[in-house]
Amino acid sequence: MKANDLPATPWVLARRAARMNPSVIREILKVTERPGIISFAGGLPSPTTFPVAEFDAASRQVLAQDGPAALQYAASEGFGPLREHIAASLPWKVDPAQVLVTTGSQQGLDLVAKVLLDPGSRVLVETPTYLGALQAFSPMEPEVVGVASDDGGVIADDLAAKAQDARFFYVLPNFQNPTGRTMTEARRAALIDVAKRTGLPLVEDNPYGELWFDQAPPAPLAARHPEGTIYLGSFSKVLAPGLRLGFLVAPPALYPKLLQAKQAADLHSPSFNQRMAWQVMQGDFLQRHVPRIRALYKSQRDAMLAALDREMPGLGLEWNRPEGGMFLWARLPRGVNAVDLLPRAVERGVAFVPGAAFFAGAEDDPEALRTLRLSFVTATREQIDRGIAALAEAIREVT
Amino acid sequence: MKANDLPATPWVLARRAARMNPSVIREILKVTERPGIISFAGGLPSPTTFPVAEFDAASRQVLAQDGPAALQYAASEGFGPLREHIAASLPWKVDPAQVLVTTGSQQGLDLVAKVLLDPGSRVLVETPTYLGALQAFSPMEPEVVGVASDDGGVIADDLAAKAQDARFFYVLPNFQNPTGRTMTEARRAALIDVAKRTGLPLVEDNPYGELWFDQAPPAPLAARHPEGTIYLGSFSKVLAPGLRLGFLVAPPALYPKLLQAKQAADLHSPSFNQRMAWQVMQGDFLQRHVPRIRALYKSQRDAMLAALDREMPGLGLEWNRPEGGMFLWARLPRGVNAVDLLPRAVERGVAFVPGAAFFAGAEDDPEALRTLRLSFVTATREQIDRGIAALAEAIREVT
Repeated sequence: MKANDLPATPWVLARRAARMNPSVIREILKVTERPGIISFAGGLPSPTTFPVAEFDAASRQVLAQDGPAALQYAASEGFGPLREHIAASLPWKVDPAQVLVTTGSQQGLDLVAKVLLDPGSRVLVETPTYLGALQAFSPMEPEVVGVASDDGGVIADDLAAKAQDARFFYVLPNFQNPTGRTMTEARRAALIDVAKRTGLPLVEDNPYGELWFDQAPPAPLAARHPEGTIYLGSFSKVLAPGLRLGFLVAPPALYPKLLQAKQAADLHSPSFNQRMAWQVMQGDFLQRHVPRIRALYKSQRDAMLAALDREMPGLGLEWNRPEGGMFLWARLPRGVNAVDLLPRAVERGVAFVPGAAFFAGAEDDPEALRTLRLSFVTATREQIDRGIAALAEAIREVT
Repeated sequence: MKANDLPATPWVLARRAARMNPSVIREILKVTERPGIISFAGGLPSPTTFPVAEFDAASRQVLAQDGPAALQYAASEGFGPLREHIAASLPWKVDPAQVLVTTGSQQGLDLVAKVLLDPGSRVLVETPTYLGALQAFSPMEPEVVGVASDDGGVIADDLAAKAQDARFFYVLPNFQNPTGRTMTEARRAALIDVAKRTGLPLVEDNPYGELWFDQAPPAPLAARHPEGTIYLGSFSKVLAPGLRLGFLVAPPALYPKLLQAKQAADLHSPSFNQRMAWQVMQGDFLQRHVPRIRALYKSQRDAMLAALDREMPGLGLEWNRPEGGMFLWARLPRGVNAVDLLPRAVERGVAFVPGAAFFAGAEDDPEALRTLRLSFVTATREQIDRGIAALAEAIREVT
């Protein structure tokens, strides 16, 4: 038999590969990148908030002062001064030795899954929850269980009922993706009580916490229960996502394994980017910059709420009033399906993400199918007005 | 019971975490970072080769022309023009759609392991092999099997005997880490014959291929058998490692799963870095830059060979003569252990990596224990002279 008569190489995929599927959101985003579409679909921070001039100055300074070190291999833990800055900026006592710099906070989810999840391990999530977390956990083949949640966040009794043998509870308390909701002080206290009583470990994700509009959210869970919590943070929403810089704070006993997983995953996060971010943040830059992001996003949320108030009466749509972050959550009238609505909305020039993708294992639940996520930060106020009007027309058509 | 009487949170680690251990090399590097130590241990490219001025110009241009896009979220596949550049630079027909930009080529190993390895899957490696690959594969709990290899690379008969049911063979044909050896043309042809005959998939890692001294190495395996090979490349050795940019080229049928694993791992590699690297490489920069790296590393290899010729006669040390790359491989006299030698060498101000760490599952083999890896690219020629003299004294002490 000649070489060119041979069958193709019989690549065998790992079992976990069957669980890997294209992100529904990324697929939708491809459709909605068509020029002229007003997109409430993506979770893209407004590029007008990126401190381009400051990054330019920081890049020059880093390369001039420390170019070879910034371009060399570096410690897996992250750049020392950046780790110290992160530890000092958090509202509880954190040793810089507990801080691991990650390639975006998405990598934090990958590392947590590698270190804590075996095939079949039980992991608890909110209902609904961040889709990227489900994707990061999925290759480790856990059993993902949704915990009942409402506008105030997760419901402690249901959490307690499901805590037994769970490897951890993944929770996004502030301006959650996808719902925009914030966990109340009372709910946080009740959650911590359950965690301590049942020994349930927590993984707290807080990419949006700084983006509050009128008042800061209640203290993080990690501040209340540091030994029982891995905390994930991000620079994507306060600086820029294109640097891919996030971090995690781990209890000292867990840190070495997370570090070893990090080393095996990509050796370290880019040294140049870490130094640039640190440089930009010198001299209280964030204290001046973040209030501008808050003011912008608040005005865009207000524009979306005003447009909804104007366009939606009589259509049976319900929506919430997020107090920060990037997303608003809406419910169509009972029996109307957001997946069916999407193509009609796109025809009229507006896009959103159907909410069902965010419900772990309950994507077909009629309550999940009614929901949609609307981002208010990527479109301008004028686009928000036109987009919500177009969405109202599309809803009118299907109801 | 009061909250503060409760036991600490009972974190349960995944089974794979037991296999995660600190990198021996990274632990050694910590010791050898002491000032005054001449290190042949690290695999750090010479920082004098980093194009700092070109990166500075590229950063300014990227931020001035396209700042917001460079700082925004981006496609998981990578920056389009960079993928086209990569495809066009490879010596076989590659569609840019087969190129996935990774966060260093280390991440390529992580993605390959996730997509192709189940617990207990058989994976074949050279003897010895790159330690970082063993660390990247290990969390997926494979059975790693070493294939017999000599100075010309892997031995085809042993590969054929072990190919059955192996998920892939991981191979580093050019100036291999740790041995510096290069696979001969005849061995490559024999390997491809085995791969085609037995259906054994290949994962080819080529971070050092451009660093040849007198002549380019034979064509990559992927060029000979593209449907049966995943090819991993890196910008760490021709530009700089601190940007964390590598890539993989996958057969079209495998690409979607690798892409989904990438998405879940860190969404995408830093957009800013990808644009900077692309910008720097415009106008044939690498064609001018890489020959300078080759000339420098060749002069350093020559310095190390000359120092070995001068210092080692009568001590029973054997060593090879790498034709490119960063590493030289040496064998102590039978019965002398490189791990025992290390502290004595460090006392005398010189460090290296004991070779045993690179032997999958055969770290205690007396043949493995005799070996050591010497990097000739981080130290200057003058340091190489002093370091090899100090190493000779240490060897004299233990033999």
